[in-house]
Amino acid sequence: MRALASDAGRAHVIGVTGSPGVGKSTTTNALVTRYRERGARVGVLAVDPSSPFSGGALLGDRIRMSEHAADPEVFIRSMASRGHLGGLSWAAPQALRVLDAAGCDVVLLETVGVGQSEVEVAATADTTLVLVAPGMGDGIQAAKAGILEVADVLVVNKGDREGADRAVRDLRHAVDLGDRSEPGSWRAPVVRAVATTGDGVDDVVAAIEEHRAWLGSDGLTARRVRRASHEIEGLALATLRARVGGLSGETRLDVLAGEVVAGRSDPYAAADALVRSLT
Amino acid sequence: MRALASDAGRAHVIGVTGSPGVGKSTTTNALVTRYRERGARVGVLAVDPSSPFSGGALLGDRIRMSEHAADPEVFIRSMASRGHLGGLSWAAPQALRVLDAAGCDVVLLETVGVGQSEVEVAATADTTLVLVAPGMGDGIQAAKAGILEVADVLVVNKGDREGADRAVRDLRHAVDLGDRSEPGSWRAPVVRAVATTGDGVDDVVAAIEEHRAWLGSDGLTARRVRRASHEIEGLALATLRARVGGLSGETRLDVLAGEVVAGRSDPYAAADALVRSLT
Repeated sequence: MRALASDAGRAHVIGVTGSPGVGKSTTTNALVTRYRERGARVGVLAVDPSSPFSGGALLGDRIRMSEHAADPEVFIRSMASRGHLGGLSWAAPQALRVLDAAGCDVVLLETVGVGQSEVEVAATADTTLVLVAPGMGDGIQAAKAGILEVADVLVVNKGDREGADRAVRDLRHAVDLGDRSEPGSWRAPVVRAVATTGDGVDDVVAAIEEHRAWLGSDGLTARRVRRASHEIEGLALATLRARVGGLSGETRLDVLAGEVVAGRSDPYAAADALVRSLT
Repeated sequence: MRALASDAGRAHVIGVTGSPGVGKSTTTNALVTRYRERGARVGVLAVDPSSPFSGGALLGDRIRMSEHAADPEVFIRSMASRGHLGGLSWAAPQALRVLDAAGCDVVLLETVGVGQSEVEVAATADTTLVLVAPGMGDGIQAAKAGILEVADVLVVNKGDREGADRAVRDLRHAVDLGDRSEPGSWRAPVVRAVATTGDGVDDVVAAIEEHRAWLGSDGLTARRVRRASHEIEGLALATLRARVGGLSGETRLDVLAGEVVAGRSDPYAAADALVRSLT
C-alpha cells in the first residue's frame, strides 16, 4: 500500500450515490460502457450491499453479473459496508488507491446514499453524482437525507417515467434554494437519463467532464486533499480503536462499560479514562 | 448528562430497522399505540432521514405528523444521521439516555437499516426488530446488507400483500441457515404484520416480550454493557477527533494530506504521525 501511493493520483474518481432502487448499478454499468467506448481503463468500487457488482450468491439469489466482468480493462472491486475495522472512511480510499494505481483512468465509486459513512465516502469523490428517480418524493427524500449538498451532478434516472419532468423541476428548484450565488461557484446541473436504454447517459458524461474542467488542477487537488484527510483520519482512528481492544485491567472497555451500567461511573468519565489510557 | 446517568437504565430499548419503504415509521407508530394502551410511557428516537418522526417541512413537503405528537406521555426525539461529531455511536446513546431518564418504560429506536453506523446503532438495542416487506427480494436484500444478523425479531410488514407467505418462508429459512443450534440460544421468530391496520402488531409485541424474558436480567445487562461500550468508545473517539482539529504545524491534518497528495508521504506514515501527535 505504501508502495502504491506514488503510482496513484491519476484516476478521476466519480461517486455514484442515491437511495436504494434509483438505479445506481444500472447507471454505473452505462457509464462503464461509455468510458470503455472512449478507450478508458475503468475501475468500479461498489460499496453497496444491494449492488449486483458487490453481491455474491445468497439464498439462491442469482446476482445479475455485470456485462463488463470479463473485460480485462475493467476492474471491479466490491466491499460490504460493514465489518471494516475503522469503517469505510479507511477501507474505501485504500481500495480506490489500488484501482488508481492499476492504471484506471476513471474509477466509479458506487455507494448507497443512505447512512452517514456511505454518504461521507461518496462525498470524497472528485465528482459526485446523486441519482434520484421520479415519484415517491425522491428529490425530497434526497434533500432530507442531506445528499443534495454533496451533489456535483444530479441525475434524474428512469427519466421516461411519469413524474420525471416534475422531479427535474423540483431538483432545479432545490439547487436554486441552496445556491449562494458566489461568483465562479459550481451549480449542480440536473440531467435526465434512462440508464437501462442509455438515453441521456452522454449528457451525464458531459456534465461530469464539465465539472472536472471547472475543478481544474487546483480544485482536483483540493478534493484529493479532502479524500486523503478522510483516509488519514480513518487510519489513525482505526489504530486507536485497535489499541482499545488491547487494553487490560481497569481500562478495558467492557470493564468501563460495566461500571457505567452499574451506575458507579458515567460514560463521560469512562471516555476520559479511555482517552487517558490511549494517550 | 453526567447527572442523568444514574436515572437511566429502566427503559426497554427496542430497535426498529429495515430498508427504506418497509414501513418502519408506521410500525413504530403502531407499537406506540399498543404500549400506550398498556399505560406505558413511551419514547421514540428516530435516526432516519426519511422518517415522518424526524422530518421537518422541506420543499413544501407536508410531513404527516405522528398521531402521538400531542400525547404528554410520548416523547419524540429525532436526529439526522449526519453532522454529529463522532457520529451516531456517540449521539444516539446520549439521546436514548435522556428519554430513559425522563421515565420512559419503552424507547423505540428507529434507524434506517442501510449504512454501517445506522445498523450498528440499531444493534445496540435491548431487542432489535428487523422489518422487511414482501416482494422485491427484501429478505435477500436484508441478508446481503447484514441486517439479519442483528435481528432478535423479524417482522414481515405489509403482510397482506402478495408474496408475504414467501417472504415469511424465506426468512425462516434464512434464520435456520444462520442457526448454530446452541442450547438455550435465541432463534429470531418471524412475525407477519400489517402496521397500517394494526393486524399482527400484538404478535410483534408478544415476540418482543418473549425476547425480553429470554434475555433475563443477565442478558439485559450484557446488552447494556455493549451499548455503553459503544457510547464510551464513540465519546473517546470524538474527543480524539476534536483534538485532530486542534493540531497545528506539521501535524495539521490538511498539511499531512497535502504531503500525501503531493507524493511526498503516504497515508500510513501520515496516520502514524497523527497518532503520535495525539498521544
